[in-house]
Amino acid sequence: MYNVQQAVILGAGLGSRLKGALTARPKGFLQLGGRPIVEESIAKLIRTGINDIVIVTGYCFEFYDRLAEKYPFVRTIRNPDFATSGSMLSLCMAAPCVQGDFLLLESDLIYEYQALQALQSSPRENCILLSGRTGACDEVYVGVSDNRVVNMSKCRDDIKWLGGELVGISKITGDLYRQMTGLAAEKCKQNSQYHYEDCLTDLSSSTAIYYHCIENLAWTEIDHEQHLSKARKDIYPLIQQRDSETVVSKQVERHVLLNPGPANTTDTVKYAMVVDDICPREKEFGDLVEGVRQDLVRIVHGADAYEAVLFASSGTGAVEACLSSVVPHDKSVLIINNGAYGKRMQQICDGYGISHIDYDIDWGEPVACDTLERLLTQHRQDISHLAVVHHETTVGILNELSTLSHLAERFGVEIIVDAMSSYAGISIDLKDSGIHYLVASANKCIQGMAGLSFVICKKESLEKTKEIKPRNFYFNLYQNYAYFSHKHEMQFTPPVQIFYALRQAINEYFIETEQGRAKRYATLYDVLAKGLQALGFRFLVETQYRAKLLTAIIEPKGTHYAFSEMHDYLYQRGFTIYPGKGATQNTFRIANIGALAKQDITNFLVHLEAYLIKNDIKLRHQQTEPVINHHQL
Amino acid sequence: MYNVQQAVILGAGLGSRLKGALTARPKGFLQLGGRPIVEESIAKLIRTGINDIVIVTGYCFEFYDRLAEKYPFVRTIRNPDFATSGSMLSLCMAAPCVQGDFLLLESDLIYEYQALQALQSSPRENCILLSGRTGACDEVYVGVSDNRVVNMSKCRDDIKWLGGELVGISKITGDLYRQMTGLAAEKCKQNSQYHYEDCLTDLSSSTAIYYHCIENLAWTEIDHEQHLSKARKDIYPLIQQRDSETVVSKQVERHVLLNPGPANTTDTVKYAMVVDDICPREKEFGDLVEGVRQDLVRIVHGADAYEAVLFASSGTGAVEACLSSVVPHDKSVLIINNGAYGKRMQQICDGYGISHIDYDIDWGEPVACDTLERLLTQHRQDISHLAVVHHETTVGILNELSTLSHLAERFGVEIIVDAMSSYAGISIDLKDSGIHYLVASANKCIQGMAGLSFVICKKESLEKTKEIKPRNFYFNLYQNYAYFSHKHEMQFTPPVQIFYALRQAINEYFIETEQGRAKRYATLYDVLAKGLQALGFRFLVETQYRAKLLTAIIEPKGTHYAFSEMHDYLYQRGFTIYPGKGATQNTFRIANIGALAKQDITNFLVHLEAYLIKNDIKLRHQQTEPVINHHQL
Repeated sequence: MYNVQQAVILGAGLGSRLKGALTARPKGFLQLGGRPIVEESIAKLIRTGINDIVIVTGYCFEFYDRLAEKYPFVRTIRNPDFATSGSMLSLCMAAPCVQGDFLLLESDLIYEYQALQALQSSPRENCILLSGRTGACDEVYVGVSDNRVVNMSKCRDDIKWLGGELVGISKITGDLYRQMTGLAAEKCKQNSQYHYEDCLTDLSSSTAIYYHCIENLAWTEIDHEQHLSKARKDIYPLIQQRDSETVVSKQVERHVLLNPGPANTTDTVKYAMVVDDICPREKEFGDLVEGVRQDLVRIVHGADAYEAVLFASSGTGAVEACLSSVVPHDKSVLIINNGAYGKRMQQICDGYGISHIDYDIDWGEPVACDTLERLLTQHRQDISHLAVVHHETTVGILNELSTLSHLAERFGVEIIVDAMSSYAGISIDLKDSGIHYLVASANKCIQGMAGLSFVICKKESLEKTKEIKPRNFYFNLYQNYAYFSHKHEMQFTPPVQIFYALRQAINEYFIETEQGRAKRYATLYDVLAKGLQALGFRFLVETQYRAKLLTAIIEPKGTHYAFSEMHDYLYQRGFTIYPGKGATQNTFRIANIGALAKQDITNFLVHLEAYLIKNDIKLRHQQTEPVINHHQL
Repeated sequence: MYNVQQAVILGAGLGSRLKGALTARPKGFLQLGGRPIVEESIAKLIRTGINDIVIVTGYCFEFYDRLAEKYPFVRTIRNPDFATSGSMLSLCMAAPCVQGDFLLLESDLIYEYQALQALQSSPRENCILLSGRTGACDEVYVGVSDNRVVNMSKCRDDIKWLGGELVGISKITGDLYRQMTGLAAEKCKQNSQYHYEDCLTDLSSSTAIYYHCIENLAWTEIDHEQHLSKARKDIYPLIQQRDSETVVSKQVERHVLLNPGPANTTDTVKYAMVVDDICPREKEFGDLVEGVRQDLVRIVHGADAYEAVLFASSGTGAVEACLSSVVPHDKSVLIINNGAYGKRMQQICDGYGISHIDYDIDWGEPVACDTLERLLTQHRQDISHLAVVHHETTVGILNELSTLSHLAERFGVEIIVDAMSSYAGISIDLKDSGIHYLVASANKCIQGMAGLSFVICKKESLEKTKEIKPRNFYFNLYQNYAYFSHKHEMQFTPPVQIFYALRQAINEYFIETEQGRAKRYATLYDVLAKGLQALGFRFLVETQYRAKLLTAIIEPKGTHYAFSEMHDYLYQRGFTIYPGKGATQNTFRIANIGALAKQDITNFLVHLEAYLIKNDIKLRHQQTEPVINHHQL
């Protein structure tokens, strides 16, 4: 478990042993540097990626309420019994705000940033932060066994194996929190001074509570005058110094995306975004842009006849750039619509008032060439372009390009292909293809990040669009191309980091090779399709028409099934599936693109089957035995 | 020095001691796994961010030439004398391709990924990778002293202090490479068997060559049959296992950006982009989007009266979205043009055929309210909107908003403000401001990454635009807003990682506070302006009109000065400055926005002064003493 996003700070206490130093304010408002220690703690939490901070208040709660006004990510909740209760009651008060896993902190701590980073990077779920010996005179010693916490005590003699001293910063799962509040409901009745440390000890025999010890951590709680003076003199300056030297680092968990993009990326593509700040008008960046442009053409074998024009936008932006820039004002585009993305091309044309002739097909059905030919014949004088989606992810159908481009050629019509989710996943060879414009984006089968899209244009055709009066500005294809050609940079500010990710993704594509990627995706599809079939699922699209990059699966009938439930069940287990959309039958969708391995699909199938069994969803005939081999895991 | 981008592989050798295992192919084409060892090496180089690989070939060079055809990032260069020369001659052959710093590798190595990551993360410039004891029977021992390499030898007795064994992977600066090739020109004449190791030893007394030792590194070179069998049996499987467990990490260097955005970001904002893959249609991501939308409004105190509409695009895209969506078809927009971004608004309108009335002012001059009023009076019937750039970065002028909005209000005209480079840098309070649309982007004073832009719209005005027939699709403001409102997500695929960066950047903005950021920027400006003045520079815009976020500086006259030279001098020292653009006088520009500290500006001034002195550029009167205090560094 990495990178928790919520924190709970216990700030209710009276700070009675500090009365001299504290004049009517909570301990968190002690000040050693430029702002109160709790604000320094909040700044560190923000730095480590926390974006929701709940403070349980009590004594002088108004101080914290003012923080909540100042910081949009801070909220407070009040423990009215703070004067007589232990910390566990305060922690229970946070329940309405707790979303799931969180970091738990005491409000009177000063600590170095590393403390948070260590917990955030720890794969251990419930994890208590410990330090080496502090000699602070108020230590809570933590007893451990087999990597787990077993007890805590202020008395060293109560501890058999010492794990370290309790810092007062812990990572708590939603699960553990529920157990804690459950137990506390009972314990607090018996003991008004029940603390969260007691509760953790009480639960430690039944629930695994781990620890992470940083031997020489710079930290202290500030409970009395001696703490305060030592903090001022030694610890705070040391924390300042260490924090200024800390290098940020981060670990990411793996979620398996089975939605049709943005697809899974490699860790190296993710880290490729972490680069020195650079001004994108520098030659160094221009060279990167040029290299990416060339390689995008190379991937589809466009050689010297094609040019890539890039946009900072989603894929739809590039489709819009193409349609709005290439269809002459006195001509029409024939749009094949057998899915949501065909329909989207019609909507784009409507937005601009571009004349379009629609060939609407039921979503899930293939193109009928004779109908298409009839339409082309009928509107021969009007049509300048034929627009089609290569892989229509609405249903997972592949609109075969060579037949279409031959037909278009016969009618002297140019062809625009939306290859958003096929580019780099299925081999496309532009050479002698008769394709004039191919549109795609960075976040599908090329396995980069969202934020960049592109049109690969036949140079000869593109040059001719210079004469077409622009319909817009940002998305004008010719103007953007001219800027690339003259200045070797993007016309408008590019998404710098997304470019670096795409550079890395392209390199990794060439390392995997065109055949290698197509083969991997094909294997993923085979494992998926066979597994789904074995479970009894049926598919929307006939095998021969499938792109084999996405499968539209007919939803089970009956009251036991609900897509949202199945989605949530799988999501919690690390798999993202996708709902269906407007097809001839109700479906849900599973894509098999991105940085996925065979094992990901096998794991998915096991969980899917478990879900079906758990909810007694029958697909074909009575299932008595699991059909997916669990031993494959 | 982190993250070198080029590698040179020495692949010319005969591999004569391996003739049995090698049938007429170079050593790099030995195969232990799924592909030749040199291709495995190439894949690892790509993984570590290398994107230009030069292979020096000789024996059976065709093998490598085929790799260069397969991989766009591989090029080859041939050493025709490979059979009789040492490795240093081969390394010299790479000179025409060497760009600067590079990793140098031998072709017959197998090694774990960690080897490259260690060199890439090392701040040491020239750095030789060493390992602990291998017992490989062909070891090159490296002698060290004070962290530096002093000699290398196959004879252990030649070594006084052993640093480790030479692996055959090194990080070489462009500087050291020049010295090496210089020395080699001489040495190779005397000794045809002069190797790069000899050359490094020869230079080590005059140039600091550091080392990095990984005690238990899994690696071997493959020089003879014993190496090969040990590699197959033990080392290769170990490498496979370790590589599969490696966690990617990365360090970034600091470059100071003084261009007017994309601006410097914090390391935590950079790392915020490294997140688990997520489908942006998930509720989890929708919540992130909603939170960002709310906070963007909060930053300019728009409370409940305003809504943020976000776009995956550069800032220009959001300006286009606004202009193309809010001006009724039968009305005109009055555009104030006192810089390139005012002009851009005119260009956008031209693209769409939107009627616009232009108030053109010399770039560098402020708005004259009486002229503006005259135009408003004159076109009273036509004008529905007044459009203005708040901070015009062409010259650094601030177009004061309250005067303009009062004027617009008197004429019943709505006001569109391009606040691209002022948003979050100068306090803006939308409440009772009379501003209807405020446009900005994520990569300027809010200190996030490029790829996201937004329009903050007065809800009342935005709702009315529903009636305007769309002029486009992707950038239609109302449609995008309606999608947010109904679905709580972006209409089109968002740049996921840029969102996470913006979330973090906003949090850090609130931690710094509105006043804190404005104050920091003001301090940066003061230090900059005083320093430039002390050096004798003059400014384009009168003090009272300056936004104090960017300074347009009048270029020195005389033959000693050339912007591109000054730029390159400073760029090499880590500072990016920006050219001028179309102002009344020739200028260059220095911005003071982004994650910068006072020290960055002071350092910049020292380097700028050094440049002026070096090139004997006189600005005011004879300078005899440096005016910037070098002790501030």
